[in-house]
Amino acid sequence: MKEFELINRYFKGRGITRRDVNLGIGDDCALVTVPENCQLAVTTDTLVSGVHFFDDISPRALGHRVLAVNLSDLAAMGAEPTWVSVALTLPNIDVEWLEEFTEGMHEIAEYFNVQIIGGDTTQGPLSITICAKGTIPQGTALRRSGAKVGDWIYVTGPLGDAGLAIEARKQGFDVAPEHLRYINQRFDYPTPRVAAGQVLRGAASAAIDISDGLMADLGHILAMSQVSAHINVDKVPTSDAMRDTLNKTQQLPFILNYGDDYELLFTVPDDNKSMLELKLRQYGVEASCIGQIKSGEGQIELMLDGEKLEYQETGFEHFSKEPV
Amino acid sequence: MKEFELINRYFKGRGITRRDVNLGIGDDCALVTVPENCQLAVTTDTLVSGVHFFDDISPRALGHRVLAVNLSDLAAMGAEPTWVSVALTLPNIDVEWLEEFTEGMHEIAEYFNVQIIGGDTTQGPLSITICAKGTIPQGTALRRSGAKVGDWIYVTGPLGDAGLAIEARKQGFDVAPEHLRYINQRFDYPTPRVAAGQVLRGAASAAIDISDGLMADLGHILAMSQVSAHINVDKVPTSDAMRDTLNKTQQLPFILNYGDDYELLFTVPDDNKSMLELKLRQYGVEASCIGQIKSGEGQIELMLDGEKLEYQETGFEHFSKEPV
Repeated sequence: MKEFELINRYFKGRGITRRDVNLGIGDDCALVTVPENCQLAVTTDTLVSGVHFFDDISPRALGHRVLAVNLSDLAAMGAEPTWVSVALTLPNIDVEWLEEFTEGMHEIAEYFNVQIIGGDTTQGPLSITICAKGTIPQGTALRRSGAKVGDWIYVTGPLGDAGLAIEARKQGFDVAPEHLRYINQRFDYPTPRVAAGQVLRGAASAAIDISDGLMADLGHILAMSQVSAHINVDKVPTSDAMRDTLNKTQQLPFILNYGDDYELLFTVPDDNKSMLELKLRQYGVEASCIGQIKSGEGQIELMLDGEKLEYQETGFEHFSKEPV
Repeated sequence: MKEFELINRYFKGRGITRRDVNLGIGDDCALVTVPENCQLAVTTDTLVSGVHFFDDISPRALGHRVLAVNLSDLAAMGAEPTWVSVALTLPNIDVEWLEEFTEGMHEIAEYFNVQIIGGDTTQGPLSITICAKGTIPQGTALRRSGAKVGDWIYVTGPLGDAGLAIEARKQGFDVAPEHLRYINQRFDYPTPRVAAGQVLRGAASAAIDISDGLMADLGHILAMSQVSAHINVDKVPTSDAMRDTLNKTQQLPFILNYGDDYELLFTVPDDNKSMLELKLRQYGVEASCIGQIKSGEGQIELMLDGEKLEYQETGFEHFSKEPV
């Protein structure tokens, strides 16, 4: 199959058509219009076979996942996802694989009203890079740098499920069948918290999506905001699957470090707390208050069962195992 | 080296700072502002080791090249390049390699006043994907679909030099040393025709950059515009290096099919011909009129030495050698 045929068959004319796309797939560039008084938010994420996903991942899940992790970054800024470019490097043309993969991608794109406006297909070891774009009213973006002493710390959804799914496969944990389905779904089909991000605009002081783990991503907010944090580990939301599979101590690396959950972590000034909690309930967004911002230089104080928890572990670093 | 350290060392705080970048590297997304009454042009290109470049390519040339091929797509639309996202997949951290690679990238970015606003670094087989963004006054973009019967066909610069560089290495052609330097420079450090593209706005009826070869890329214009073309092969500009190395017949696959030159191919209505040629000279853009658009369904008639040339060869297709 030729490149043009591949693009025509799996990308062009499929998925949604947005009015603000003036020229889609098929020319040297796509042309789009950013609404007046809006900024453009841009993010890029790559998934590499054997590094970010198992070789036996369902292609449909992979198509979903690669778009989801990018939309999650837009969500963390409070942006409305609009357009994505897809760079697909494939070892060979497998029609069945491509059909499933693009189906997974188109499904989530349609759900979030996102149009695939272009990309590139190349031959090589399997890897996918997406550049996702979104729009956001001027000056309302949620940055990592806005957390202030006294702000409350929140997370959406339960943490650790994606890690549990990975380790269950790797280590052969004894997980009940209904829980296994749930955690695999959580890992394979992560839900970017797009609605939550938009609800947070004008109310949260800082936000980030949890891709590298709670400790690591909270660390980014603390570093950029020049503050410290106090976290009640008991308050970190976990799923039934997590609680039924692992005891509290075993859960710690999953809920504190594993990442890949793509939930949002955000801080809220005390003055906005009640208003925001009301708004979150109105929009059906589940979020838990897990701690508070303190003065300091990036320290994270963990409390468990009313006692200070001594705990050391780092987040997922792509190159951390590499000698320099 | 950790991912954050790598980004800080080689990307953050290096290169130019544009005023329209509201938030650069370091958060979940970058934030930029598109000027009023402008559209956003977006393009993505991936270079994979062993497919798009030799493993022994100088990292500085690779850094230049990967940005150049993306800026070339923006040039072909007549857009002003503004921001790029860089997704870098590396097998390991080689400090010297990274220093050279990013130097090459920053050099061309600075030359074209482009800011690197974000990206991703991952571990895996060497590959680079860039998503380049540019702005263009509403309604002035050069599309592939605008060529009309009677329009004149132009190309910038000499064609075939990049192909000659590749084949000289592969096949050990006998190329004079001064020519070898020139063609290697043309292949390693292609110049996206950004100024030319902007000069063409409002004057050319269609444009494309020559990445896959003259015949293949002209074919795209013809298909999108539903016309045919008549090309005087004698008029296709070639370099001294080309003419001194190969005879006319040997030159054909290089100037007609090889691609990788990143010159612009464009069509101009007869009414705009004199005005555009004057404008091109004013801006120092060299371009040659090589033929004319005819009615038809995508046929390309080639003339050489006043006679019809029978010639069959296809452009570079990434997957053309793959069984389906």
